Amino acid sequence: MTNYDSFLSRASGHLKQSAIRQMGMVLAGAKDIVSFAPGYPAEDAFPWDAFRAIAQELLGGSDGSVLQYGPTHGYRPLREDIVEIMRGRGIDPHSDRTLVTTGSQQGLDLLARVLIDPGDVILMELPSYTGAITAFRAAGADLVGVRQESDGINLEHLDATAARVRRDGRTIKALYLVPNFQNPTGLMIGLDKRAALLDWASRQDVLVIEDDPYRDLYFVDVTREEETRPLAADDADGRVLYLSSFSKTLAPGLRLGWVHGPAAIVSKMEMAKQADDLCSGVLDQRLVHEACKRGLLATHVPGLRAYYQRKRDVMSHALERTLGDRLSWTPPRGGFFLWAALAGGVTGEALLPAARARGVIYVTGSAFFVDGSGQEFIRLSFSAPTPERIEEGVRRLALALDDVRAQVRL
Amino acid sequence: MTNYDSFLSRASGHLKQSAIRQMGMVLAGAKDIVSFAPGYPAEDAFPWDAFRAIAQELLGGSDGSVLQYGPTHGYRPLREDIVEIMRGRGIDPHSDRTLVTTGSQQGLDLLARVLIDPGDVILMELPSYTGAITAFRAAGADLVGVRQESDGINLEHLDATAARVRRDGRTIKALYLVPNFQNPTGLMIGLDKRAALLDWASRQDVLVIEDDPYRDLYFVDVTREEETRPLAADDADGRVLYLSSFSKTLAPGLRLGWVHGPAAIVSKMEMAKQADDLCSGVLDQRLVHEACKRGLLATHVPGLRAYYQRKRDVMSHALERTLGDRLSWTPPRGGFFLWAALAGGVTGEALLPAARARGVIYVTGSAFFVDGSGQEFIRLSFSAPTPERIEEGVRRLALALDDVRAQVRL
Repeated sequence: MTNYDSFLSRASGHLKQSAIRQMGMVLAGAKDIVSFAPGYPAEDAFPWDAFRAIAQELLGGSDGSVLQYGPTHGYRPLREDIVEIMRGRGIDPHSDRTLVTTGSQQGLDLLARVLIDPGDVILMELPSYTGAITAFRAAGADLVGVRQESDGINLEHLDATAARVRRDGRTIKALYLVPNFQNPTGLMIGLDKRAALLDWASRQDVLVIEDDPYRDLYFVDVTREEETRPLAADDADGRVLYLSSFSKTLAPGLRLGWVHGPAAIVSKMEMAKQADDLCSGVLDQRLVHEACKRGLLATHVPGLRAYYQRKRDVMSHALERTLGDRLSWTPPRGGFFLWAALAGGVTGEALLPAARARGVIYVTGSAFFVDGSGQEFIRLSFSAPTPERIEEGVRRLALALDDVRAQVRL
Repeated sequence: MTNYDSFLSRASGHLKQSAIRQMGMVLAGAKDIVSFAPGYPAEDAFPWDAFRAIAQELLGGSDGSVLQYGPTHGYRPLREDIVEIMRGRGIDPHSDRTLVTTGSQQGLDLLARVLIDPGDVILMELPSYTGAITAFRAAGADLVGVRQESDGINLEHLDATAARVRRDGRTIKALYLVPNFQNPTGLMIGLDKRAALLDWASRQDVLVIEDDPYRDLYFVDVTREEETRPLAADDADGRVLYLSSFSKTLAPGLRLGWVHGPAAIVSKMEMAKQADDLCSGVLDQRLVHEACKRGLLATHVPGLRAYYQRKRDVMSHALERTLGDRLSWTPPRGGFFLWAALAGGVTGEALLPAARARGVIYVTGSAFFVDGSGQEFIRLSFSAPTPERIEEGVRRLALALDDVRAQVRL
């Protein structure tokens, strides 16, 4: 039996290997590589001591439910913690409309399953987050890109794109946005534009999928907390599905995120989650709940902001020193990523083999564009490497660019 | 905005609330209920001390990857542990064809996504596991039931059913089996029949989905280990997708299972998992790997077998004493469940309100039948309650049956 094609579903044809995950494999297989590729948080900033102490208590065995199956919608006290977190962001949430998910990736996937019929259109920024692209495509969505500018998605192009899609007789289910420190660009959507986008969604009668994992990691030198106010905070209409995560503020190895939205949709997502994994990791949920209860987010996150801001500075300064004439970028206002455009017609794809040979990797920009453009961009993640490794990586990147230029001249 | 129907996908229409999960909610909402409903392992049998010690070491912070994102296919040393476990079951596995999943429920769901187009037929035993029913239905499968007998699925009815389905022009993608201590019946498929089923699958050119979470929990008084040999062990054809789990042998709150099968299918499942949750819980994977490395399965599982066997005895004896004339069952040869038929035309549905009023719950048999039959059955799980609570629950069940009879007489 050699041919399995007849057994595979049509939906399986939408599945593609993720560019970022492939880069992760390069990293796992290689010795001395500086990785600017995956958006991994810094491991030395995980709250190890707190988690060790909490685990010690939880695993004492006096509460058997710590290692038992749990409810599909999540551990109730954790859902209440999440409600408090959202309240702190200006949202007026309900714990009954909150679903704990196995990372916010699962939230995207469950959303895709309950919203998308093959051929339905989801509007996305150009560029946008690859994990959302993967989840929506897996459900058969037709992803249509809208241009971005420095304060986020371009409203005129959004209007024109929606009109064009509708003229073609296609259904727009939702607009997907990463409003704060977007992956990959590090940009924010301006507050006025957020309000305009809510209006727009209402007029057009589409849902908004607001993916907000980086919100807490704003850089205080260039961003005020008020500027991070989610669209969900002003969603009078019940039109926003809000997703966030503990992966960037506590640790991603505990696979925990959440989604909040209209009961009619979240309850369907809960049913889809029953089919998917019954419940998210219960020990993980208990660890994170205890961390919340002990106020760890309040004590830990300000330090994280400062730490990632310092790494951003190290990368920006290193790039300015060595690559200022061959690379341009807007300094990120928060999050994990620096999004850079290569000068002189060099593409991210063309540079990558040279970069790998020099011992540095990144993600090519085109992976983030649903229309296949973005060849000139590269995404550099400054979150995981130490400051020294960031400088070393930039040095290698400069050498790789020299190599590519030398090849062109030959 | 009140009407969300226009936003929901057609696939979301297949999603139903699970009967077992609903029973879980009853349990969560009530005070003194003896639950024979969910198939929860016994919390006092989780290896608490081992996990506490391992967590203490892992969370020391010297290995940052313990709380970081991990590879989608799973932590390599854990995949190697899984290969060893499967080898101990007679399978000749490859770690590259092994995917770590977020519980074996995720394995079923990923399989459904990569195999099933809406309308495709999956053949299932009557009765069969509800989690599989849920996952396959969510993908739009048409589930067709095949009768069961004491040594497993009836081969003549399997032939006849497959022929009928094919005459209707429908595609059979797979046959789903739980060969060892089936959920819900506690039955085993006989060894001869396993061989015959592999032959059958080869002749019919269908895949076999072999779901084997209970394999290690055979009861030594009535079952020899050799009788648990999986179909996958004799799968010369590459036709079997084998699923198993750490939920019953270690703990389900660490959401970890696995699937092993042909590379062409497992690699697609890995891509679907990227869209689904990026990776399974990393701390969970590390905890389970360390447990495997320290030989915990070998030292822990024999005691589990004896413990659940004793609970089976407590339930069987209590039922014999109080309900021997009103209930019939085949003593389970392993696993968590006693599957009983009610005498005198009483249905599981009709008994349930009386049982709840008396403070005992179970799962109604019809939840396990894809053809809507099985009204006379109830599934009693003896795994979680203490022996005293099992006796108390049976006493309450007898009272509930008295109540129902009294109602009928009135």
